[in-house]
Amino acid sequence: MTENMLEHFFYPESIAVVGATSREGKVGNTLLKNILPFRGKAKGHVRIYAVNPKYDKILNVRCYPSVLQIEDVVDLAVVAVPAVSVPEVLEQCGAKGIKNVVVISAGFKEAGREGAVLESKLVRISDKYGLNLVGPNCLGIINTHAGLNATFGKSTPTKGNIAFLSQSGAFALAVIDWAKAANVGFSKMVSLGNKAVLDECDFIEYLAMDAETAVITLYLEDIREGRRFIDVAREATKTKPVVVLKSGKTEAGAKAASSHTGSIAGSVEAFSAAFQQSGVVEANSINDLFDFSLTLSRIRHVSGGIAIVTNSGGPGVMAADAIEESGLGLAAFDRETMEKLRDLHVANFYNPVDVMGDADSDKFGSALGIVSAAESVGAIIAILSPTAPIEFDKAGDYVLELNDKKPIIPVFMGGDEIANTVERFKKQGITNYFDPVRAVKALCAVKKYSESRDKVSATPFYFKVHRKAIEELIGLWDRKEVKRGIGVEGFKVLETYGIPVPPYGKAETAAEALELADRIGYPVSMKIVSPDIVHKTDVGCVKLNVRREEVKETFFEILHRAEKYTSARRIEGVLVQQMVEGGKEVIVGMKRDMHFGPLIMFGLGGIYVEVFKDVSFRIAPLSKEDAIEMIKSVKAYRILRGVRGEPMSDIDSLVDVLLRVSQLSMDFPEILEADLNPIKVFEHGKGCYAIDFKMIIEAKK
Amino acid sequence: MTENMLEHFFYPESIAVVGATSREGKVGNTLLKNILPFRGKAKGHVRIYAVNPKYDKILNVRCYPSVLQIEDVVDLAVVAVPAVSVPEVLEQCGAKGIKNVVVISAGFKEAGREGAVLESKLVRISDKYGLNLVGPNCLGIINTHAGLNATFGKSTPTKGNIAFLSQSGAFALAVIDWAKAANVGFSKMVSLGNKAVLDECDFIEYLAMDAETAVITLYLEDIREGRRFIDVAREATKTKPVVVLKSGKTEAGAKAASSHTGSIAGSVEAFSAAFQQSGVVEANSINDLFDFSLTLSRIRHVSGGIAIVTNSGGPGVMAADAIEESGLGLAAFDRETMEKLRDLHVANFYNPVDVMGDADSDKFGSALGIVSAAESVGAIIAILSPTAPIEFDKAGDYVLELNDKKPIIPVFMGGDEIANTVERFKKQGITNYFDPVRAVKALCAVKKYSESRDKVSATPFYFKVHRKAIEELIGLWDRKEVKRGIGVEGFKVLETYGIPVPPYGKAETAAEALELADRIGYPVSMKIVSPDIVHKTDVGCVKLNVRREEVKETFFEILHRAEKYTSARRIEGVLVQQMVEGGKEVIVGMKRDMHFGPLIMFGLGGIYVEVFKDVSFRIAPLSKEDAIEMIKSVKAYRILRGVRGEPMSDIDSLVDVLLRVSQLSMDFPEILEADLNPIKVFEHGKGCYAIDFKMIIEAKK
Repeated sequence: MTENMLEHFFYPESIAVVGATSREGKVGNTLLKNILPFRGKAKGHVRIYAVNPKYDKILNVRCYPSVLQIEDVVDLAVVAVPAVSVPEVLEQCGAKGIKNVVVISAGFKEAGREGAVLESKLVRISDKYGLNLVGPNCLGIINTHAGLNATFGKSTPTKGNIAFLSQSGAFALAVIDWAKAANVGFSKMVSLGNKAVLDECDFIEYLAMDAETAVITLYLEDIREGRRFIDVAREATKTKPVVVLKSGKTEAGAKAASSHTGSIAGSVEAFSAAFQQSGVVEANSINDLFDFSLTLSRIRHVSGGIAIVTNSGGPGVMAADAIEESGLGLAAFDRETMEKLRDLHVANFYNPVDVMGDADSDKFGSALGIVSAAESVGAIIAILSPTAPIEFDKAGDYVLELNDKKPIIPVFMGGDEIANTVERFKKQGITNYFDPVRAVKALCAVKKYSESRDKVSATPFYFKVHRKAIEELIGLWDRKEVKRGIGVEGFKVLETYGIPVPPYGKAETAAEALELADRIGYPVSMKIVSPDIVHKTDVGCVKLNVRREEVKETFFEILHRAEKYTSARRIEGVLVQQMVEGGKEVIVGMKRDMHFGPLIMFGLGGIYVEVFKDVSFRIAPLSKEDAIEMIKSVKAYRILRGVRGEPMSDIDSLVDVLLRVSQLSMDFPEILEADLNPIKVFEHGKGCYAIDFKMIIEAKK
Repeated sequence: MTENMLEHFFYPESIAVVGATSREGKVGNTLLKNILPFRGKAKGHVRIYAVNPKYDKILNVRCYPSVLQIEDVVDLAVVAVPAVSVPEVLEQCGAKGIKNVVVISAGFKEAGREGAVLESKLVRISDKYGLNLVGPNCLGIINTHAGLNATFGKSTPTKGNIAFLSQSGAFALAVIDWAKAANVGFSKMVSLGNKAVLDECDFIEYLAMDAETAVITLYLEDIREGRRFIDVAREATKTKPVVVLKSGKTEAGAKAASSHTGSIAGSVEAFSAAFQQSGVVEANSINDLFDFSLTLSRIRHVSGGIAIVTNSGGPGVMAADAIEESGLGLAAFDRETMEKLRDLHVANFYNPVDVMGDADSDKFGSALGIVSAAESVGAIIAILSPTAPIEFDKAGDYVLELNDKKPIIPVFMGGDEIANTVERFKKQGITNYFDPVRAVKALCAVKKYSESRDKVSATPFYFKVHRKAIEELIGLWDRKEVKRGIGVEGFKVLETYGIPVPPYGKAETAAEALELADRIGYPVSMKIVSPDIVHKTDVGCVKLNVRREEVKETFFEILHRAEKYTSARRIEGVLVQQMVEGGKEVIVGMKRDMHFGPLIMFGLGGIYVEVFKDVSFRIAPLSKEDAIEMIKSVKAYRILRGVRGEPMSDIDSLVDVLLRVSQLSMDFPEILEADLNPIKVFEHGKGCYAIDFKMIIEAKK
């Protein structure tokens, strides 16, 4: 999909409204009415046609029985006919050579099985003719900068620099109505509907290049093309912020997982990892979605600490607390700034600067001026209560004037008294907040965006691996089952991928076990090798700290217990392994997410993972930077760094393991889940060992 | 302070405005203008007097040189004269027998040292005459239900059932102006100012009995009378919700602490514990403060799960996610409800109920009706997007009608289209939210309040203890220092308080050490006893797992190391103690908070406390319920309950330790901080042992 093709959605020179009608209140009527004022890029050269066999003319627009009868070239067809008629209309569009179609009609996938069949017809016809199709089951599209409203909504949003893509038409309607009352402007809006052909990826690609769009804001309920989303969003966020609200966090899928990683790594984690890795700012509520978007539409970077100027102490302290908690950082003033503030007679010439309740707008403005000139200040939160001496419009002048020097977030607190000033701010794209905590939260989104953009574009890391050896290994296993659990017998896979495991061997007889143990050195651990026994410890099939004199006895004991375990039909032997003393336990895992592919997990020890859910996620393939970030972003990282004078753990060796597991997961799509749990990591320079291993493999189709 | 006395603040029959002036724009002018329309309880029987030696009449009100010249009884004096003149005015009020005074004048404690001296004068005069004084440095007071506005603000809030107390006058101004525009009503408002005499406790007591007040909402910057606040708030929350926003979280005090507990237990933790124990709902932002208050003003209890009815899927899912995350719980419908919903042809007859985008207001209303009749439903979130078939006013009728059956939180999404309906809701005290997540958050506040109210009123637990023995013990220590650290030598204190410690003894010679160890049994631990060595392990003065043959050698080694430690002048001997094997490590600590008294802390092991800050706090004296809650509310409680088939730990013994430490902290105010760290707890029925102990004692003044 190239940008030029989508350009015709927003700047068509000729539009056909299929299903137009003169019946008031009907979708086909509102739609035509909304489109009629459109004048196009070159103002006045747009041709609009109605299509409906029942009319010759609708609202003074010439009406055709079908698009085929239109003599002119048509750039865009907007379709609002009953669902059953849509396939025929699409066929006609295809035949006519219309490339861009918005299908507003509902009654497809969302309406049940028959609708889904109908929708797949639309996909087939679109493929056949190479149609760019938006919808079906959508509200339409809007381009405020060209005056195009191709929706059946009652109102048109005002011009602005935020592009809004919504998977829900109803939600888009709510946003349009709200935005109008709140005087929030948009550049373009697309109601994505069922996303039968075009989806958010296509429009993110287009909007990244759109000069009128400063921020791309999305409301999504699912993402079909996970990998493409990451690539497209990563590219777009290099140029402009992308803010996403994703609804639908709880998903049955996560509960059905059988590995440890699988049970923790749900789709919420996959989505969050994908957003993080592509520089997308995630919002968790509608308030946040627009707070973040509005602030990012004018502030993309804060270089320095945050200063607070206030005429009332309390709200200033609230803002300061929120800044400290969020890690944004309060600005520290230089001596010159402090002296200037002292000369101004403020209560506090440190940050937050309290000009006090008796200050007038000029004093407030002077403080703002001094602070905005300080080099250490990256942005200013300007808090103003409606005290008697304050004239808000005058104070607003200072904000508007100084905002070019340093971005200022106004927190003018009040109702009617501030209304006029707030409107003036809005016209300059500046959002006022009543609540200082919300202002800080919006600034955090700026920090998040600029940090992700500043990161070196991460390239995945690759090792040379004997893929062939592994293919053979996987091929050896019984593939009659659809899914299969692999336990310690998969150590070979780790070895091949260069992941260190303690010396081990598989014994089929007690004599072999002793021979192996002698070679490995004592004490050893002994574990059953059986694809039928997943929880080996629970059935007594794992023995630790086995001494030489106990080896043979233990061998028989393990076999005996395994045989007692009813479903244990396939016993392949007993694994004899070196006992690993000391080290700290970490877990590395992988779960293949249905949307995004392999989701890699990192965490410390069983308790930290199970009780605190203190884990980090990234989607493979990982770059070295990703792996380092994953390790550093768990809270328990402090334990690896060494608490109370302990030595630092060998982080490098864990980075290496993460990269190799990432590559394994990319190389073998048949691996659905994997747990390296525990991995024991030793002090710096002494590496790590994967002690236990489990994976779930699916038969190749 | 009895309620009757404060009654005259809100329902005076005669008011003197001291410092009234005819000069436009001055505080004394605005104040008089604001008060003039007041007609009192019995409508029309109020006498208002101006006081200013420069005038005979102001705004047609008779003016006196001082209150002394007023022949009438005066119920309330509102003072707005320069700060230096306030003491004289107060003297005159006292002499005149005026009991209630609001001092609006600024220039006191907030203005520096001289102001503080002036303020202490006000306190002395108030004490002398028994004056109830609000302020100084405040905006004044408001009683909307009597039409009394004794502030110098520009506008009067509308009538409502929320009482608002604000420590910041500027913030109160902002709230009044905002509330007017947002159509939020108040019953009474008090700007507390510097709280020289009356503070939030006095007004909470009064407002708890006030029939016109449904919710008490506070903005506080500090709390002077911590203990009284807890008592007063606990009593008030039995009758009505109290919601608090406390600004100023970071405090230098916490950083200077010397014990482990001290370094974690800052004043934020103390405030939060105090709020929790007194049933106060804490807000963390201005949005939350009023969202919570407004919702609690009409919903105090939710008995059942939350149902969602929506005409657009996405926002419904957002609400459902937020409900699940918050632990509120989605309602499960009974068969009858589901059948009724199925007959209505909705997309989903489970919860959330999606009536779909093509539903009209009647269908939406029918779904609301069905759901509100379901027994399992405690409250309903009604989400509505502005789709074509929806008439908001009609949908609003359903909400207003059914709201009596089950509380409904409307989330009508839009701007102009919903404006009229939103106003109608407001008139019925119903708040509409644009963001479903915010609606859920407000419902959470209801849950929090009703849960705290349902709790058995907790009575502190007391043990019989030989206080005398301890007093002697503490008396023995050198009290020349202002503060002193007590280490293992304080085990005696624990024993006296019935807290189990492993068998131990103090040896002054190597022979004594061996004798002790023989009696205790091997292996033993050995630790230096010296008030000068706080971090014993760091200087090698702690030896674990000492066997019989090592005891004497170890004794000398510890002494030697202690002597090498430069500041270690007072060496009292070596503690010989039984080594305790196994068990799980927990920490119990205490820090005396300057506002609330002893703050008790509970947590698991060093790492959980240090890295995850996974600890809980309560203010002593603790009830048994408090202690149980403290233990259960740490995340790591799962570890005590037993993970992976481990036995449950002896929780009862920990409850016992918490209660005993609570009592110790109440009995001895000279104990500033205490750490029982670690305590080793064994499986159920096997108790626990305090392994190490440290406390900081302050000399009694």
